[in-house]
Amino acid sequence: MARIVMKFGGTSVGDIERIRNVARRVKTEVDAGNQVAVVVSAMSGETNRLVGYCDAMAELYDTREYDTVVATGEQVTIGLLALALQTIGVDARSWTGWQIPIRTDDAHGKARILSIDTTILNERLALGQVAVVAGFQGLGQDNRITTLGRGGSDTSAVALAAALKADRCDIYTDVDGVYTTDPRIVPRARKLDRITYEEMLEQASLGAKVLQTRSVEMAMKHKVRLQVLSSFVDMPGTLVCDEDEIVEKELVSGIAYSRDEAKVTLMAVADRPGVAARIFGPLADNNINVDMIVQNISADGKATDVTFTLPRGDLSRALRVLEAQQDAIGYQRLISDKGVVKVSVIGVGMRSHAGVAQTMFSALSEKGINIQVISTSEIKVSVLIAEEYMELAVRALHTAYGLDAA
Amino acid sequence: MARIVMKFGGTSVGDIERIRNVARRVKTEVDAGNQVAVVVSAMSGETNRLVGYCDAMAELYDTREYDTVVATGEQVTIGLLALALQTIGVDARSWTGWQIPIRTDDAHGKARILSIDTTILNERLALGQVAVVAGFQGLGQDNRITTLGRGGSDTSAVALAAALKADRCDIYTDVDGVYTTDPRIVPRARKLDRITYEEMLEQASLGAKVLQTRSVEMAMKHKVRLQVLSSFVDMPGTLVCDEDEIVEKELVSGIAYSRDEAKVTLMAVADRPGVAARIFGPLADNNINVDMIVQNISADGKATDVTFTLPRGDLSRALRVLEAQQDAIGYQRLISDKGVVKVSVIGVGMRSHAGVAQTMFSALSEKGINIQVISTSEIKVSVLIAEEYMELAVRALHTAYGLDAA
Repeated sequence: MARIVMKFGGTSVGDIERIRNVARRVKTEVDAGNQVAVVVSAMSGETNRLVGYCDAMAELYDTREYDTVVATGEQVTIGLLALALQTIGVDARSWTGWQIPIRTDDAHGKARILSIDTTILNERLALGQVAVVAGFQGLGQDNRITTLGRGGSDTSAVALAAALKADRCDIYTDVDGVYTTDPRIVPRARKLDRITYEEMLEQASLGAKVLQTRSVEMAMKHKVRLQVLSSFVDMPGTLVCDEDEIVEKELVSGIAYSRDEAKVTLMAVADRPGVAARIFGPLADNNINVDMIVQNISADGKATDVTFTLPRGDLSRALRVLEAQQDAIGYQRLISDKGVVKVSVIGVGMRSHAGVAQTMFSALSEKGINIQVISTSEIKVSVLIAEEYMELAVRALHTAYGLDAA
Repeated sequence: MARIVMKFGGTSVGDIERIRNVARRVKTEVDAGNQVAVVVSAMSGETNRLVGYCDAMAELYDTREYDTVVATGEQVTIGLLALALQTIGVDARSWTGWQIPIRTDDAHGKARILSIDTTILNERLALGQVAVVAGFQGLGQDNRITTLGRGGSDTSAVALAAALKADRCDIYTDVDGVYTTDPRIVPRARKLDRITYEEMLEQASLGAKVLQTRSVEMAMKHKVRLQVLSSFVDMPGTLVCDEDEIVEKELVSGIAYSRDEAKVTLMAVADRPGVAARIFGPLADNNINVDMIVQNISADGKATDVTFTLPRGDLSRALRVLEAQQDAIGYQRLISDKGVVKVSVIGVGMRSHAGVAQTMFSALSEKGINIQVISTSEIKVSVLIAEEYMELAVRALHTAYGLDAA
C-alpha cells in the first residue's frame, strides 16, 4: 500500500466525460489498495473566463476580489470529480483550500503556501476515502481565499504530497512525460525515463510548460518523487528525482526554448559607476524581471552599450520606464527587438565535463546562426538568437548532443 | 441615516454592464449616508449551468457535492460587484456564506439558516464599508458549504436584514413591484403600493414568482420591512408590511395562478378507515407534497373516489409510488391529468367579509368554467380548473373583484 497524490490539469478535467475518465484512473489506484488524494485544476477555459470577467470589470483590480472570483473554477471541479468517483463506487469528498485549510501568505493572486493542516485528511485517507482537493487556492491570514498564480495547481499537489508524506506525486497532463525537447519541433525527441530535479527546474524556468517552476523547487526541497504522465494514454511517464537515483547520466538531457523573450539595447550609455543600478533599479521597482545582460566594452572608455532580455509581455512597460529615466541614466538611444528567442541546453553532466558550451557554439555556427547574447549556469547554457532560426537551432543541438532517438 | 439590505437577483446581475448598474444603485444609497449590505444571486444562467453539470455527472447525487459546485455562482458575483463598487470609489468587500458565517442546518440543497454572526459585518458597516454578501449559501454544521434551494437569495437577504436589524430590505427584481395579478395576462392589473405579509405569502406559495415563500415567512416573523422594486427602472415599488400599516384594506388584493399542478384520481377506493393514510403516507415518504384533496362521498358506502393535486414535476414519480401500492391501498383505477391549473383570490379582507367565495364561483360560472376542486384558507380561495380556461378565469376574477385599473 502506498500513499499517492494525483494531480490533473485543466485539459484532463475539461468536460464531464474527461472528469469521468479521471475518476476511473483514480479508482485504479484505490483498487490497488492505495490511499489517494487528488488535486485538480479548473475545467479548461474556466479560469480564462473568470479572469476575463475581472479584467472587464476593472483595469486595476483588488486581487483579493480577483481571488474570490477565480478560485471558483477549482471548486466546481472538486465537486464534480467527487460525484464522478461516488458514481463508480469510490468513497470520496471534496475539499476547498479553506476547508483543509491550506494556509498561504496574503500575496493575493500569487500567494505562497505556508502550511497544510493534514489532521483531517490523514483521518479520511486512513478510512479509505479519496480526498479531492482544489488546486491553485488557499486561505490567507485574514480568512480570505487566495490563489497561487497560474499553474499553481502543480504547486498545490507537490505541497500536499510533502505534507502528507506521500510516496509519490503523479502529475497527469496532456503530454506523456518529459522529452529531450519539444517533439513538435524535433520528431526524433525522446521521452526521458528519469530527469533530475535540477534539470527539470531549468526546463520549467526556460519555457517548457510541463511543470510549474515553483512546484519543481518544492519537490526538490522536500524530496517529493514527482512523476509526469499522460491522463489520456496508459503508459509510464517520466520520474523527476534525485541525481543519485539516475544511474546513466547523460551529458545533456534536454534542449529548451522560449519565445517569450524581448531584447532591449541602450546605446551609448555614459560609462560611469552605478550605471547598472540606474538602469535596472527602476525596472525592478516596476516588477520587471530582467534575464540575460551584456555590457559591451566601451572603445573610448566613455560610453558603452547595455543589452538585456526580459519577458516579451513586459517590453512596452519597460520601454516607458526607461524613456522616463533617459536623463537619469544618461543614454543616447533605446533599441528593442521582439524577434528573438532563447535556446538552452540543459544537463547535470555539464558540471563534470568541459566543452559542452563549445559543442553548442560550433553546432550553431555551422548552421550560420548568430549568437546575440550568452548566459550560463552550472547546468545550462542559454543563447539568444533571431526567432526565425529557432527550429533549426533546436534540431541542430538535439543532434549535436546525441539526443536523437534511434 | 438608515441601515439597508439590498438584494439583486440573477437577471439584475446578468452581465458585467448590469453589475455596474447595480453598483451605481448601491452608490446612491451610500451617498445618501446609509449603511448598506448587498445580497446577490448568481449571474442569470449560471446556476442552471452548474446544476446541469451535476445532473450530467450523476442521477442521484450527493447534495453536499452539489452544494460545493452550485454555490460558486454567487461567489463569482460578489467578487465582481465588490470590484465594480471599488471602481466607482465605494469601499466594499465580498463575503461568502462561510466567511461571515451564515450558519445553516445540514439539509444540503435546501438548508435553513440557523444564525448569522453579525460581529464583523457590524464592524465594517459602521466604518462605511459596503458588505457584498453571497446569497443562497451558508455554512453547514460540518464546515461544508450549504445552499438554501432555488430562490434562496431572497431568504438570505431577509435573514441578513433581520440579523443586522436593518431599517429596510429592498428586493430588486425584474418587475417593478407586486401586482394585483400577472400583467401579461391582465393588462389592466395594478401595482400595489402596499401588501400585507400574509397576502404576499399566499401569492408566493400560489405561484407568483416575485418573492420566495420562505423569505416572506421570515420577514413576517421578524417584522422586516420588505420592499419589492425594479433594478432597471427608478420608481417606488411595493412595500410588504404589517396589516395595521395599511389604511385602506381591499377585500381582495390579488388573483394568483399556478400552472405547476397535476391532478390524480384514485377510482373506487375501498371506503374504510385509514385509507387516506395508506394513500398519502407513501407519497410523503417519497417527499411528494400533496396540495388540494377531495374525497367524494361513496354512494353505497363501500367505495369512494379520491382526487388530489400535486406539483406537475412530481406526477410520474407519484404514479409509480401509487401503482406499487395498489394492493395495499385497494383502488380500482388510477387517473391523472396534467391539463389543470390553480387559480386563487387572495385578500386579508376576507376574514371579515362573507361572500368572497361566492363572487368567485359566480364569476367563473358565468364564463362557463367548471370548477374541479376547491380549497380555502382564512385569506384565500383556490380552485382547480382546466388549463385552457386559465387566462379567461384570471381576467374574469380581476374584473369581478373590482381590481381593474381605471
